[in-house]
Amino acid sequence: MADGPVRVASVGLGRWAKTLADSIIKSDRLKIVSCYSRSEKNREAFSGQYGCRAAKSYEELLKDPEVEGVLITTPNNAHTTPILEAAAHGKHVYVDKPIAHTMSDALAIDRGCREAGVTLAVGHSARRLKGNRQIKEIIDQGGLGKLVMAECNFSNDRSLELTPDKWRWYRDGSPGGPLIQLAVHHADNLHYLFGPVKTVTAMAKRLYTPAEIEDVTMTLLEMESGQLCYIGSNWTSQGTYYTYIYGMDANLYFTVDFNFWSRSDVVDQHSHMEIQHRGSSEHKPIPLSQGDMSREQLEEFADCIRKKRQPEVGGPEAIAALAVVHAAIRSAETGRTVVFKEVLEAT
Amino acid sequence: MADGPVRVASVGLGRWAKTLADSIIKSDRLKIVSCYSRSEKNREAFSGQYGCRAAKSYEELLKDPEVEGVLITTPNNAHTTPILEAAAHGKHVYVDKPIAHTMSDALAIDRGCREAGVTLAVGHSARRLKGNRQIKEIIDQGGLGKLVMAECNFSNDRSLELTPDKWRWYRDGSPGGPLIQLAVHHADNLHYLFGPVKTVTAMAKRLYTPAEIEDVTMTLLEMESGQLCYIGSNWTSQGTYYTYIYGMDANLYFTVDFNFWSRSDVVDQHSHMEIQHRGSSEHKPIPLSQGDMSREQLEEFADCIRKKRQPEVGGPEAIAALAVVHAAIRSAETGRTVVFKEVLEAT
Repeated sequence: MADGPVRVASVGLGRWAKTLADSIIKSDRLKIVSCYSRSEKNREAFSGQYGCRAAKSYEELLKDPEVEGVLITTPNNAHTTPILEAAAHGKHVYVDKPIAHTMSDALAIDRGCREAGVTLAVGHSARRLKGNRQIKEIIDQGGLGKLVMAECNFSNDRSLELTPDKWRWYRDGSPGGPLIQLAVHHADNLHYLFGPVKTVTAMAKRLYTPAEIEDVTMTLLEMESGQLCYIGSNWTSQGTYYTYIYGMDANLYFTVDFNFWSRSDVVDQHSHMEIQHRGSSEHKPIPLSQGDMSREQLEEFADCIRKKRQPEVGGPEAIAALAVVHAAIRSAETGRTVVFKEVLEAT
Repeated sequence: MADGPVRVASVGLGRWAKTLADSIIKSDRLKIVSCYSRSEKNREAFSGQYGCRAAKSYEELLKDPEVEGVLITTPNNAHTTPILEAAAHGKHVYVDKPIAHTMSDALAIDRGCREAGVTLAVGHSARRLKGNRQIKEIIDQGGLGKLVMAECNFSNDRSLELTPDKWRWYRDGSPGGPLIQLAVHHADNLHYLFGPVKTVTAMAKRLYTPAEIEDVTMTLLEMESGQLCYIGSNWTSQGTYYTYIYGMDANLYFTVDFNFWSRSDVVDQHSHMEIQHRGSSEHKPIPLSQGDMSREQLEEFADCIRKKRQPEVGGPEAIAALAVVHAAIRSAETGRTVVFKEVLEAT
């Protein structure tokens, strides 16, 4: 077992790679030692900004003995090959959500990492927001009584900026539009809070985006535990993120200021939680502690490597979240309720 | 044409009859001159409280030449006979929402009143909340830009108090539980704000109520105009009412303190509206004026009688709201999206 910070390399050097790197800078448990992008300009810029080597090829990066793990932030439809190659070289893998764009890619990624004996951690950061952590705690302590239902929304207007040169423009690369980009966070968080999904019923429309994908979606989940959950997600209106939980003894209302979504070091300061107790209509504020969802998941990734532990969100959890997306797409296309297991186990 | 306040009689003297009577007391445009309930005790009490005659039979009330209109607040499944009898006696009809419990009853009521040439007004008061009125105004003035979607909730815990001697206990009398009791208000309001419904997709579960009916429901509406709308409605958690409207230029968040729902003279004071403009995450409060949703609809009923006008919510509007309920029930039972017109025109 190596000592010191876990040495990682960033692969795919877009906006989110920098968000992750900004979190790593503040941590003494990881260190970025290398990076790679097909664009020489991007890798030189990243290398300069974060003080790491820039590999000239992905193979060079994977053969670098100092690199213990890779951070994959390539487009959703370009996760599988770099991950399987990393696993084949014995490198541990952190990949941003969703795990992949198709169920078969997701299963191949999970299997490849398991067979290679490397850690696979998937960046479903939303469950690590302090508000969602606190919801989980309050539920587990019985503070809401029996659970009734949940309502969630994650929306922003980014589909309006899409152009045909962007992979998110296309149904093939980004199936479901806001479902796979935004709603997938709530799909994971609802698994975290309520357990497994039983059936999925959804509607999806393309209203205003210039792109191929749908831009307005609504998904209903029936959980194995009985509750109903709603996820609203559009890609054409103002930034919105909330999780409302309805219990027999109290309701919780958790809202995040979306403008701080990619500022993981302060996002919890720009979040609000309120509780409404039985018989009362008062929404009473609950103070939230301050965390860092990105840093937490990256430090957990480092711990998993050093201590050979399973990450909180590994292959199975990320596959379940992606299966909600594909079940919703299938339901919206067919106008029928979809049995979740049929999507989860079909491929 | 008679002069002075329109003289009405209350029929079915439960909680909501008193809410309506309390509104009429404050108005100089209606006067309660008579009342009837099968329970002598109830009609004597109502008569004493509101200073009106107590008819010994419904026939006596209908033959009373002073009575111009009746206010029907009998159980949902006991609307049809008293309404058709009233119409046959030339009395105008105000009936509380929903218009009836079945589509065939609703159509019979509408037809009976039309053929008798009497006004039929249906008490879908929620669209008359000042918040919903203001949403409509802001939409019409283009303040939200193109409409994207809406999310609504109307819930309370009243199914937990149900006992087998209550009509609301039974699926026959109260099909859909919270769908027909609560969600039907949003169904009407969404017609008001977005226009006609195209398809309906829903889930409904019976989780905690001792009664026969479902107690947790979620309904998705695809509107003819393209937008998607969600209505959450359960009957086992704290009182909740909100309408959120998402537009390309701004979102509106309208919330009512449910504890004041039946206090129509002050409910608007206990309501809150916020707007979130494009590019901003600030929720900016919008002041609401003070109205009285019950009084407004009763005074409109009086005006319709005097001026031979059509009420804002008459037979067709109320039938459309009820059709959403029955389409949702059918969708939840079959696991399929239901074409709205097939429910609206089937019976």
